[in-house]
Amino acid sequence: MSTYHPLTEQEAINIARNIEQFFPADASLSCKEIGDGNLNLVFHITDSVSGKSLIMKQALPYAKVVGESWPLTLDRARIESEKLMLEGKLAPGLVPQVYQYDPVLSLTVMEDLSDHVIMRRGLIEGNEYPLFAGHISTFLANTLFFTSDLGMNQQEKKLQVKNFINPELCKITEDLIFDDPYTVSDNNNIEAAIEDAAAALRSNDALHLEVAILREKFLTKAEALLHGDLHTGSIFIKKDSTKVIDPEFAFYGPMGFDIGAIIANLLLNYAGQAFWTKDDADREAFRNELLNTIVSIWEQFHDKFLALWEAHGVDRLANEAKGYKEYYMKHVLQDTIGFAGAKMIRRIVGLAHVADIDRIEDAAIRNAAQRQALNIGTELIVRNRSIQSIYELIDIVKSN
Amino acid sequence: MSTYHPLTEQEAINIARNIEQFFPADASLSCKEIGDGNLNLVFHITDSVSGKSLIMKQALPYAKVVGESWPLTLDRARIESEKLMLEGKLAPGLVPQVYQYDPVLSLTVMEDLSDHVIMRRGLIEGNEYPLFAGHISTFLANTLFFTSDLGMNQQEKKLQVKNFINPELCKITEDLIFDDPYTVSDNNNIEAAIEDAAAALRSNDALHLEVAILREKFLTKAEALLHGDLHTGSIFIKKDSTKVIDPEFAFYGPMGFDIGAIIANLLLNYAGQAFWTKDDADREAFRNELLNTIVSIWEQFHDKFLALWEAHGVDRLANEAKGYKEYYMKHVLQDTIGFAGAKMIRRIVGLAHVADIDRIEDAAIRNAAQRQALNIGTELIVRNRSIQSIYELIDIVKSN
Repeated sequence: MSTYHPLTEQEAINIARNIEQFFPADASLSCKEIGDGNLNLVFHITDSVSGKSLIMKQALPYAKVVGESWPLTLDRARIESEKLMLEGKLAPGLVPQVYQYDPVLSLTVMEDLSDHVIMRRGLIEGNEYPLFAGHISTFLANTLFFTSDLGMNQQEKKLQVKNFINPELCKITEDLIFDDPYTVSDNNNIEAAIEDAAAALRSNDALHLEVAILREKFLTKAEALLHGDLHTGSIFIKKDSTKVIDPEFAFYGPMGFDIGAIIANLLLNYAGQAFWTKDDADREAFRNELLNTIVSIWEQFHDKFLALWEAHGVDRLANEAKGYKEYYMKHVLQDTIGFAGAKMIRRIVGLAHVADIDRIEDAAIRNAAQRQALNIGTELIVRNRSIQSIYELIDIVKSN
Repeated sequence: MSTYHPLTEQEAINIARNIEQFFPADASLSCKEIGDGNLNLVFHITDSVSGKSLIMKQALPYAKVVGESWPLTLDRARIESEKLMLEGKLAPGLVPQVYQYDPVLSLTVMEDLSDHVIMRRGLIEGNEYPLFAGHISTFLANTLFFTSDLGMNQQEKKLQVKNFINPELCKITEDLIFDDPYTVSDNNNIEAAIEDAAAALRSNDALHLEVAILREKFLTKAEALLHGDLHTGSIFIKKDSTKVIDPEFAFYGPMGFDIGAIIANLLLNYAGQAFWTKDDADREAFRNELLNTIVSIWEQFHDKFLALWEAHGVDRLANEAKGYKEYYMKHVLQDTIGFAGAKMIRRIVGLAHVADIDRIEDAAIRNAAQRQALNIGTELIVRNRSIQSIYELIDIVKSN
């Protein structure tokens, strides 16, 4: 048993060779490190004989973002691998298969998804994924229901809360999503041309109250085991397959945070697509399809979650109390809307932007897209606690 | 280092003799086991030479309630001692001092409070404690604020959540408070004469919806480190001193659960005192004083909590967002009202009753007190989410 150290490509090959019953005895393995080096090493290992391949992801003991570097716990590799394996059980086929986890090396060996593309990239290129709403709503309903007090033993759930306490990764979210965008912070990354809109975020009292309430929910509401970072960069996709990756931010939090993350990133693409790559008619059709996808995700999630509850609910009173299911789903929707807004705003004025918008070369068009995203995000947040239907979100989007 | 076993009185003396700098070298120690034997052994050890004394509390690996016995984790002794020590730091003078904790023996050595009486007993005897509202509001404000995301480092708070995961003790509350009273259960303990009122609890849809929502908060809302069982039997009192004991149910939950427990037990005494021991004028004066105490506890808690927030708030957005403090305190009040109602009802129809009411010998008077407690409890629960002021609670009490 070696101690922790960042692996070389040769060491990765040696480990791969010893994974039971994966590569044939006569395998000829090659390895390429394909990570961005900011948080993890990612080794892509292929056998030229059998054509088989796999991925090894090793956590690094630091994080680098936009040039800065700070120490970051290796425990996130344990959290990621355990969450991936749990997701694999609860939502089969919707995450990469985990072949092996090495706690000493903080190393997860998993399925190679090179035949998929990162969804953010696919959407930017204007691809449609008609099966996505079905896949992601199943992922959300299954992973959230069966880790909640509605769908699992309530004493074992408390032990899961304990197992997925994740202070360092949560801290990143607490700062970058629920604080910096609403104040003057060195972490912010604001284009000079939209400084007036950023200043408006900093002086909007109604917005601050709602963000404080959303922040409180993120800090205290241990509702279900979340992915915790479910944007379109955490999804591998192709026409017939969706794979959710990278759950290192997993922790027990409010369900709406995961659902809202997906919706926010579709809306960020919506704002980016409005001005980008395609002629007007196609563009409008694509944008409408994004909105249809959002409605479909919510509606399918809602129906699948309730079906699971009906079939597998463990909580007598929650199962039987008249009106409770409606109360519950309404609050999940409201949280979803609020968190979606917070996720949009942080991607415009916060530290980490999204390519959906940043890659627009024309500054005027880019800034208009940024303003649209901020306007939508702000209205989603300010109105979240009064939302009764997903169609109100669509109305908000269309009126901004 | 011995392994865990229930101590004899002689072993307790030997341990006491070795506690550093407590008893003098020439001490002549005697020991009496004074626990009820249902959950813990409690040794009272005195030195006839110096007059000094102490208490040793040892957890037993089982619980006995009303004749039944089931296994129960010894980890509760760790939780209790750690919570007691933390309370001692946060609310000095309001809990017994802990001299020593032995994790192997699940043994906490602490201050002897024999000069105090159990508050429930004191109230039943008609004693007034004019300093109590001040003491308990300080205890609540300090222990709840400084363990919440408002008053402590938010990453360290997550480690505290982990440290105080307490599934077995929470399960008792989940069953006995948030389930059994609202259904047919062998755990219930209902006098035949009020079976109609108990049946009404089982068929009240509006009540079930609110109890389901309160149960959800108990299960998911990791707001502050609670005592978890803060009734008047968990308080030692005398005219000038209040000491909160027995925090083995400690876990991270909604603040209103602790505050509501105190209020519920004062109201149970109120219902019991209405028909008991004193002439009419005195009785009314005593009852009014109980209601004044409740108002004073809430108002002092409110003011002290906000003062701590003003002076020590760690969350930028929570500190600065306009309207957030009012929003927060209103929700703590609403939770308090709802949990108070749930705590009252379980003491009338659930497994464990309270002497405040059960000791009324006249069956008609006792049943009338039970009905009053059920009526007040039901109305507190049904109305909890619309309550704006503690005076609405007083109105509810007076109208039932």
